[in-house]
This record gives sequence, structure tokens and C-alpha cells, in this order.
Amino acid sequence: MTRLDQQFTFLAEAEKLKSVTRATPIHDASRPENSGEHSWSLALYALTLAEQAPEGVSIDRVIRMLLLHDLVEIDVGDVPIHSKGGTAHGAEDILKAEAAAAERIFGLLPGDQGAQMLALWQEFEANETPDAIFAKSLDRVQPVLLNHQSGGGSWIDYDVSFTQLEERIGTKIARGAPAVWDWVRDRVEGWFAARS
Amino acid sequence: MTRLDQQFTFLAEAEKLKSVTRATPIHDASRPENSGEHSWSLALYALTLAEQAPEGVSIDRVIRMLLLHDLVEIDVGDVPIHSKGGTAHGAEDILKAEAAAAERIFGLLPGDQGAQMLALWQEFEANETPDAIFAKSLDRVQPVLLNHQSGGGSWIDYDVSFTQLEERIGTKIARGAPAVWDWVRDRVEGWFAARS
Repeated sequence: MTRLDQQFTFLAEAEKLKSVTRATPIHDASRPENSGEHSWSLALYALTLAEQAPEGVSIDRVIRMLLLHDLVEIDVGDVPIHSKGGTAHGAEDILKAEAAAAERIFGLLPGDQGAQMLALWQEFEANETPDAIFAKSLDRVQPVLLNHQSGGGSWIDYDVSFTQLEERIGTKIARGAPAVWDWVRDRVEGWFAARS
Repeated sequence: MTRLDQQFTFLAEAEKLKSVTRATPIHDASRPENSGEHSWSLALYALTLAEQAPEGVSIDRVIRMLLLHDLVEIDVGDVPIHSKGGTAHGAEDILKAEAAAAERIFGLLPGDQGAQMLALWQEFEANETPDAIFAKSLDRVQPVLLNHQSGGGSWIDYDVSFTQLEERIGTKIARGAPAVWDWVRDRVEGWFAARS
């Protein structure tokens, strides 16, 4: 296999992310969002909200992370953040399955390149560097706005309260992009108030 | 309106790109690809095939271009490259409508940021700088591989011959990434030979 053989094998595998559906609907609630188009949204969020990133964050690295971050779902599927009372996401067995998926999928690439992308994915998952923390906060905020835009989405399906949203998600958005969470909270709080 | 108000207005508008469908099906031919997930694929192509770019190309600028390049389709729709015998794409009236769409959509952003994104989109469209030429070649190659992966796709719908593919698309891929077109041509030529 040449390097191009390996790279195109990886790219053909990556196409399957378009068949992984998420709990959040798209803007007009006509269908569930898939993880491929979700990854595009996040990269565009990073580009658009770059000035919200703390000093020292590389937006181009954040974009690269976000382009890759969900590829493991080709094997594992998307685990909705509000499922099982908010406990399924981050469960031990799922983290293990995702790590194995990352080894398999990035392992399709030439060794040097696969190792680089795997390291970027691991950095995102570990959520410790400034780049990863900002990337994670965008991954949390886009579904909130999409639920709001589409009329409730997975908040209705999982019967989510504003307190749960703030605990499960708001705190994580605020960690990477505090002004963004302030803006979003002010917009979505009314939706929950009107429902209760 | 604050800058965040403008940025989130733009991001909510951009979500609509997920409802613009293309002539190419997704990998398993189960449905048409949409322009949002297509943009994600292209950004991942750029990241994965970075070593195919000529010296001096900035892959991060190419990725930014590709994230934005199809937003005008929210107003204009996707114009399939093989439609009307290959003449519809690039027709005067469509180029005009796309330019107006770019003004409207990037105009939702704060002035400085909108102008920057508009300039990046115009650079992509003009197809003259090394970054734009490489980005365009990726925009041409991904649908070829997706048609091949899904069993023919828009080649069947538009009754495309290998000569037409080479003229309309192969030459454009070769302009930005000659080794990529060599690799792809060798893989897809058999599909056309088997059909004729």
C-alpha cells in the first residue's frame, strides 16, 4: 500500500460518519443531525467565535481537532449527553470502545500521520490543554443552540430541566468560553421557563 | 446588536446548509449528500492529503476556505457539475446569484469578520492563488470518489462518460493535485469501462 492508498482508505471510512445520527435535530426539526455535518458546524463555530478563545489558543488546531473528534462514532455511535439521566456519556465501557475505535480508524493512515491524528483526538478527549478545552466548549454549545432553533429537540425527548442543562452542559461551556455561555443562557432560559 | 449577536445570527443561518442536497449520494447510496457534510468531508480531505499540496500552500487557510465555500448554496442551491451537459455550473446568472448570496450571508457577521470571510470565499471562487487551486481540486475529487464508493451516483443519473469526467473534472483535479488525479483515474476508469 502506498501512502495515498492508506489516506484514501481512511477518507472512505470517514464518509460513514454521515450515517451516525445524533439526538439533536437539524435547524428545522425535519430530521436528526448526523455527526459528519455536526463536525462541520463545530469547525465553523471555531472560526466564527475565534475571538472568544483565551490567549494562546490556536484556532487552526481547534478546527483540526473538531474535524476529527467524532470519527470514533463510526464504531461506537453517538451517546446522547442527556441519555440515562446524563450518566451514559463518559461511562467506562464507552470510553474504552472509543479508544479502540480511534486506534482502528486512525490506524488506517500512514503510521506518522495516524499517530499525529490519534494524539490530537486523545488531547481533545483529555480536555486539559487550552485548545481542547475551547474545542470541547464548542462541542457543547452547538447542540444547545440547535435544540433551541428547532423548538426543543432532545430537551423534550429526554425531559431536560434548565438546572440539568446548566449542570451537564452550561458549566462545560463556561469553562472554555464563559461569555458564550452567558449569551446562550440568556437566550435559552426562557424556553425552559415557558415549559414548566 | 453585539458582536456575539451577529456571530450567532450567522451561525444559525449557516445551519441551513444541511438542507441543501447535492447530486452525489453518500457512501452507501442511501440518500443524497448535503452541502454541510460535504464541506466537512472536504476539510478532512485537506487535512489528510496535505502533503499533496504544492510548496507554499497553507493547509489551514485551505481548510477555512472549504468550511465556507458552499454557504452561498443556502440561497442558490447546489448546481450539479454534470447537469445540462456540464454547462450549468459556472453560468453567468448563477455566478451573480452566488455573489449576492455571499454578500448577504457574510454580511450577517460583524463588518471586519464578514469582510474577511467574503474575501476568502472570493479567493476560492477566483481559483488563482495556490491555496484556492488546491482547495478547488479537493472540491472536485471528493464527489468522484463518493460516486465510485456508492456504485455510480450522479454518473448514472447524468449518463457521464469517462471522457466527460476527465474533461470536466479530471483536468481540474490535476491542476491542483496531479498525483491525486493519477491515483483516482486508475481506480475509477474500470467502472466506466465495465459500463460501456
